Amino acid sequence: MKLSTVKIAGRQTWGMATERDFADVGAALKARYADLRAAIADGLAGVAEARAGAQVYPLGDVTWLPVLPNPPKILCVGLNYETHRKETGRSEVAHPTIFARYANSQTGHLAAIPVPKVSGSLDFEGELAIIIGKPGRYIPRGAAMGHIAGYACYNDASIRDYQYHTHQFTPGKNFPGTGAFGPWMMTPDEMGEIGPQAIRTRLNGEIVQEARFSDLIFDIGRIIEYCSEFTALEVGDVIATGTPGGVGAKRNPPLWMRPGDQVEVEIEGLATLRNSIVIEN
Amino acid sequence: MKLSTVKIAGRQTWGMATERDFADVGAALKARYADLRAAIADGLAGVAEARAGAQVYPLGDVTWLPVLPNPPKILCVGLNYETHRKETGRSEVAHPTIFARYANSQTGHLAAIPVPKVSGSLDFEGELAIIIGKPGRYIPRGAAMGHIAGYACYNDASIRDYQYHTHQFTPGKNFPGTGAFGPWMMTPDEMGEIGPQAIRTRLNGEIVQEARFSDLIFDIGRIIEYCSEFTALEVGDVIATGTPGGVGAKRNPPLWMRPGDQVEVEIEGLATLRNSIVIEN
Repeated sequence: MKLSTVKIAGRQTWGMATERDFADVGAALKARYADLRAAIADGLAGVAEARAGAQVYPLGDVTWLPVLPNPPKILCVGLNYETHRKETGRSEVAHPTIFARYANSQTGHLAAIPVPKVSGSLDFEGELAIIIGKPGRYIPRGAAMGHIAGYACYNDASIRDYQYHTHQFTPGKNFPGTGAFGPWMMTPDEMGEIGPQAIRTRLNGEIVQEARFSDLIFDIGRIIEYCSEFTALEVGDVIATGTPGGVGAKRNPPLWMRPGDQVEVEIEGLATLRNSIVIEN
Repeated sequence: MKLSTVKIAGRQTWGMATERDFADVGAALKARYADLRAAIADGLAGVAEARAGAQVYPLGDVTWLPVLPNPPKILCVGLNYETHRKETGRSEVAHPTIFARYANSQTGHLAAIPVPKVSGSLDFEGELAIIIGKPGRYIPRGAAMGHIAGYACYNDASIRDYQYHTHQFTPGKNFPGTGAFGPWMMTPDEMGEIGPQAIRTRLNGEIVQEARFSDLIFDIGRIIEYCSEFTALEVGDVIATGTPGGVGAKRNPPLWMRPGDQVEVEIEGLATLRNSIVIEN
């Protein structure tokens, strides 16, 4: 299943997507689930069955919101591909590097990502996001995959000068409208094993980042194991698993995203997340 | 006014505290405000007036929760007293150092802070927290104080080995039950000007940290100005403004908090936040 949160005619709902249309399952199951997160918490019980009775809209009628607009936590893994670790000049470390995004920094598929008034250094970071479906603490690596409700494309777009104001990344990772999350999450049964798939970021059609998930330094099982040591994972938590080499900041000259640009994060077999760049108004 | 979120007879509510008792204003204004955050969003309209009709409980009947159990954001300022910056060996920087806590790492006044199974390096960090009452973006320093709904004691208790696993602090700052926030927030009219007050952390009765707010490297106005550049501040956001020198990790030998210890964060004219330390079960 491909699931997301959207607006249809100004009304927020959630439902099931195909490449052509969107079924408003949220309206059909309104009495049962307040939102997609509530459906995930209940193991998506009744969701597939509700599709038959749901109203179906062409994708052109849908405004995509972040797959989950209000995750309890967004945990981001830094430096998790060797190509990116090397371009940043960082040493190897024994544990995943974790920083945080706040929910109000997110945006949806096809939304415009703003270049803020205070900086021109807007950079792309294509990533695989996982969505937690089953809560837990001290989750062993071997049991980790059973806690995943789905996978999605994420663009962890970053304001580099703010990211490097100090040694903590938080400011550069939280500008409004920079965390693109969509168009949908795909359930693990449909996604299959994580490893062989390629992830590619394109800027104005040109590939700027490319890797396979088998290149991850810390795999998904280890990331969940580690995060669940220091925090209680909750239903709807999002973990962005890191970006491959090729970021604009480490090019010479740097390659920043500019108003009018188009950026895409494609994950094979999952989706393509597409956003335009605008100037903040 | 002194305001907080509490449990009374197993029921969550919020209200107005004195040194002796607690008025259940949340029950009296139930039709108007879902929680303390909703009341703050409405400028605490009607709150002082509702005290007269509210049921009053002795403090012994009250279980303190975090002042706000579910802030949209908890922003923490690192290295914001010269004594602490020097003991960590960090360079001077031109901007505040910002890291994040997630809401589910918080705990209340008199609750037990657990030493986690996976680490023994639990350290204290007494801090002044501010609570945002008026949302905003690009807030000028001179207008910043008008966005504050209140002040509170915060113990940003930290698991130091996890904090230093990588260059990002997130894991060490998010263990469950480590972010103590209470007992109450005090409104700005009652708090007065921030500057002359002392903040002291005591471990088993002995002073281990002490400073005055006039010692802050980045003052509250500048912190709000900076944070509002990279994020939209929301009602109920919490900003922990940094800890003075004296942390346990930088002592020789290190001074960790152990099961059975008592830790207090006292802010003159505001409150004393008190927590015991237990072993995680």
